[in-house]
Amino acid sequence: MDINRLQQQMGFIIEIDKLKNILRQTHITGEDRQENDAEHSWHLAVMALILDEYANEKGIDTLHVIKMLLIHDLVEIDAGDTFAYDEKGYEDKEEREEQAAERIFSILPDDQADMIYALWREFEERESPEARFAAALDRLHPMLLNFATEGVAWKKHNVIKEQVTKRNGTIAEGSEALWEYAQAIIEDAVETGYLKE
Amino acid sequence: MDINRLQQQMGFIIEIDKLKNILRQTHITGEDRQENDAEHSWHLAVMALILDEYANEKGIDTLHVIKMLLIHDLVEIDAGDTFAYDEKGYEDKEEREEQAAERIFSILPDDQADMIYALWREFEERESPEARFAAALDRLHPMLLNFATEGVAWKKHNVIKEQVTKRNGTIAEGSEALWEYAQAIIEDAVETGYLKE
Repeated sequence: MDINRLQQQMGFIIEIDKLKNILRQTHITGEDRQENDAEHSWHLAVMALILDEYANEKGIDTLHVIKMLLIHDLVEIDAGDTFAYDEKGYEDKEEREEQAAERIFSILPDDQADMIYALWREFEERESPEARFAAALDRLHPMLLNFATEGVAWKKHNVIKEQVTKRNGTIAEGSEALWEYAQAIIEDAVETGYLKE
Repeated sequence: MDINRLQQQMGFIIEIDKLKNILRQTHITGEDRQENDAEHSWHLAVMALILDEYANEKGIDTLHVIKMLLIHDLVEIDAGDTFAYDEKGYEDKEEREEQAAERIFSILPDDQADMIYALWREFEERESPEARFAAALDRLHPMLLNFATEGVAWKKHNVIKEQVTKRNGTIAEGSEALWEYAQAIIEDAVETGYLKE
């Protein structure tokens, strides 16, 4: 056993514990509190397991989707969560996240740092079928939770239907079926008053 | 698209949001609070991705390990978390968890309910190489966090070295290398006073 290698890996595993302290705008059900990135990442990975039949491309590699989802938010340990409808926050998001990726992933042995970096870039670039499906789940998930919590985060930030529809239209690139479902949620959310017209 | 099927799947996805409210005895780093099961499950899945080279059996199916880890604690939504050193809690743990599995997994379409149930049983029975490795990570993880939080949960529950060594010896069944590492943690924890002799 290469003890240096194992210590680098364990260092990374402890470092990423910090993801549990990165809060998102979405609230969870049951308790009135914001979701954190670790919980979100877990939920997305289970969604991939259950919903992979709805990916536009048949026969996608579910392990690859799950790998991307498990690590896609690690950069937020340094860069923070940028709220979906925060235009100013998006201006330097890419630069902040690139720096975070370099610091955090390089705690790992080089081969694994490269592996995680490649997964993260693939997710961000949305060019593979797996990345498009993973990104679709990442967009769908807060909509499900927002609806299940009676629109608490939408209301808090005065989000309107047009913003949600525009931002989440990319779900269709990963899954036409899930985009159809998402649109029905948006309609229901407007009807019930969870989301402003 | 079979809308009934999709609605069952979405019902399950919302139901399991409750895992974020099931607290474990382990504390996370950074903030002084208990970890929840969703965070724990995410952390384990990433550990599988990074540490799979240490499984006793070479060439294990990492996706399968990750699937088990993602769903292994879902039964605690109904059955609650049983603390590792709570002998009384263990008396009816199996029965409580079996009932929980039946209720929660059957929210899914039958084929997926069967798939998740089979994964859960496989994890619990620890007979496949994947299940033994998954179980090893599940044991190792709280030790890593306990050490990183200066033994806060060990101290709170007056846990002693012998208990930790006895309970976690099964790590060796999944990974001799990780058990070697875990034993070094136990020694360090005693030396630093995080864990009682």
